Amino acid sequence: MVNDLIFPDILLYLLDMVGVIACAVAGTLLAQHKGFDIAGCILVSMANAVGGGTLRDIALDRHPLFWMTDLNYLIVITVTSLILQIFFHLYHKIDRALKLFDAIGLAAFSVIGFKVALNQDMAPLIAILMGVWTAVIGGLMRDIICHEIPLLLQREIYITASIAGSVTYLVLDSLGVNPGLNEFIMLGIIFWVRILALRFDWHLPSIRLVD
Amino acid sequence: MVNDLIFPDILLYLLDMVGVIACAVAGTLLAQHKGFDIAGCILVSMANAVGGGTLRDIALDRHPLFWMTDLNYLIVITVTSLILQIFFHLYHKIDRALKLFDAIGLAAFSVIGFKVALNQDMAPLIAILMGVWTAVIGGLMRDIICHEIPLLLQREIYITASIAGSVTYLVLDSLGVNPGLNEFIMLGIIFWVRILALRFDWHLPSIRLVD
Amino acid sequence: MVNDLIFPDILLYLLDMVGVIACAVAGTLLAQHKGFDIAGCILVSMANAVGGGTLRDIALDRHPLFWMTDLNYLIVITVTSLILQIFFHLYHKIDRALKLFDAIGLAAFSVIGFKVALNQDMAPLIAILMGVWTAVIGGLMRDIICHEIPLLLQREIYITASIAGSVTYLVLDSLGVNPGLNEFIMLGIIFWVRILALRFDWHLPSIRLVD
Repeated sequence: MVNDLIFPDILLYLLDMVGVIACAVAGTLLAQHKGFDIAGCILVSMANAVGGGTLRDIALDRHPLFWMTDLNYLIVITVTSLILQIFFHLYHKIDRALKLFDAIGLAAFSVIGFKVALNQDMAPLIAILMGVWTAVIGGLMRDIICHEIPLLLQREIYITASIAGSVTYLVLDSLGVNPGLNEFIMLGIIFWVRILALRFDWHLPSIRLVD
Repeated sequence: MVNDLIFPDILLYLLDMVGVIACAVAGTLLAQHKGFDIAGCILVSMANAVGGGTLRDIALDRHPLFWMTDLNYLIVITVTSLILQIFFHLYHKIDRALKLFDAIGLAAFSVIGFKVALNQDMAPLIAILMGVWTAVIGGLMRDIICHEIPLLLQREIYITASIAGSVTYLVLDSLGVNPGLNEFIMLGIIFWVRILALRFDWHLPSIRLVD
Repeated sequence: MVNDLIFPDILLYLLDMVGVIACAVAGTLLAQHKGFDIAGCILVSMANAVGGGTLRDIALDRHPLFWMTDLNYLIVITVTSLILQIFFHLYHKIDRALKLFDAIGLAAFSVIGFKVALNQDMAPLIAILMGVWTAVIGGLMRDIICHEIPLLLQREIYITASIAGSVTYLVLDSLGVNPGLNEFIMLGIIFWVRILALRFDWHLPSIRLVD
């Protein structure tokens, strides 16, 4: 179903790394705020950045796990976390960039999780869930370890952006759109839905028609 | 060891779905109470309803996971959660039914987890643990995600009911009781121990003989 | 890479059990403090004692899980937890022993996790992480279930001791040291780094050079 074109794969890998950096930054910041030590901060960063993909691979029985064969993930996370811990004051200058990076990560993680499940011949519903899972579980693990209420599930259009992208892919795929192009469109949709939600402060309502 | 008779299997599947609905309701209620949005409520419902079985299957290396091949699980959870979110005021009318449903789920989940482990040739001790695991971990995941102290471990005869059912099964099995009938007895024991514990407010003591 | 000598393997198994007992004690104490019932305390003890190894085996796709084939683990945990629940007043007499046991467990768990990963032909970086993982995740799961901020990540030289041991092993291994002896040295380093950190109240700094 998903054709492995070279272009979107390299692009996706780079966007994935941007997302990993965003997660490592977010994980380190929260862990430092909680008073964790150097090693603790790195561990939380790892949970945040590769936790979702890890659980996805375990659920889909894909072994070895992606970060066991490609050490770049752990190295990028560790280096990012250490740099941030040393130059903590930089944070205020990257706050805005972080939200951008995070949106890129959301898009890349969703596309990767979605593709992986389709490549394993999973039903579309499972693929959508795996996209959400890959994008969301890492942040959830970070919040659970750091003893925070998972904001992710509470607030803004986050899961919804991932689902919107997956559904668009499935619709366009059934219309015969080239998988490489389609993947690119999916990336764009998730990214922009998330960015616009941040910009215009969109929220998913609680749907209590009657209360 | 466990014979696959048709009758208890269909019955078990239906009771399983009742348990899934109970978990979806419990998950949605707590998630709404925590202010999660539509998608967040559905995610918590899924963790609550299939989290235990998922970890059981992963621990026993059974792939694909049960909800990946039988989409009914995710569909029932999503529909239940959405209905409850729309018609929230219904909750007060179903509070009692929920406890009943939950007890049915406890029995069905325990029997399924226990059977699955036996079918994998696990030791009886592991089978008992897998019964408890399937019945309990989902609620634990819900409470952890929603940042609640897991009541499950604190209060009433819950794990104990599951263990009582498993032990009864093993005893009767060693006496040569037909597996289909035995499964039925196990379901009944777990259900009634739980219901009676609720009715008469039974608690497992803390066993500090000396303090 | 790691040669399976008889001597350190039996020793390691015994030290492993000492660590399991320490974890069962720590898990039971926290669970009792939180008001969990008998079964709840045992469950938390299990998470604490075999949670890390379980996640390691799942991540490395080693099945069946170690405690499914060697029932000694679950039995030792259950008996330890029950004894402690009955003779709770003993606790004050074993407080000191517990820290010693815990350091032994840290060393044994780290060595086992590290070895297991190397035996699966994982990269050294992954092996170091698996050592940390095996030693740390159980306590993390205990704290998450019991709704506590994970002290483990916050305070003392804990993860660092595990990493120090693994790195020493890798350095000595590249110098051609016999694996059995090397393993023994690794055990000693982790144990003594941890004990000295406790004795002299060492802490890993937060590394904010500039703030």
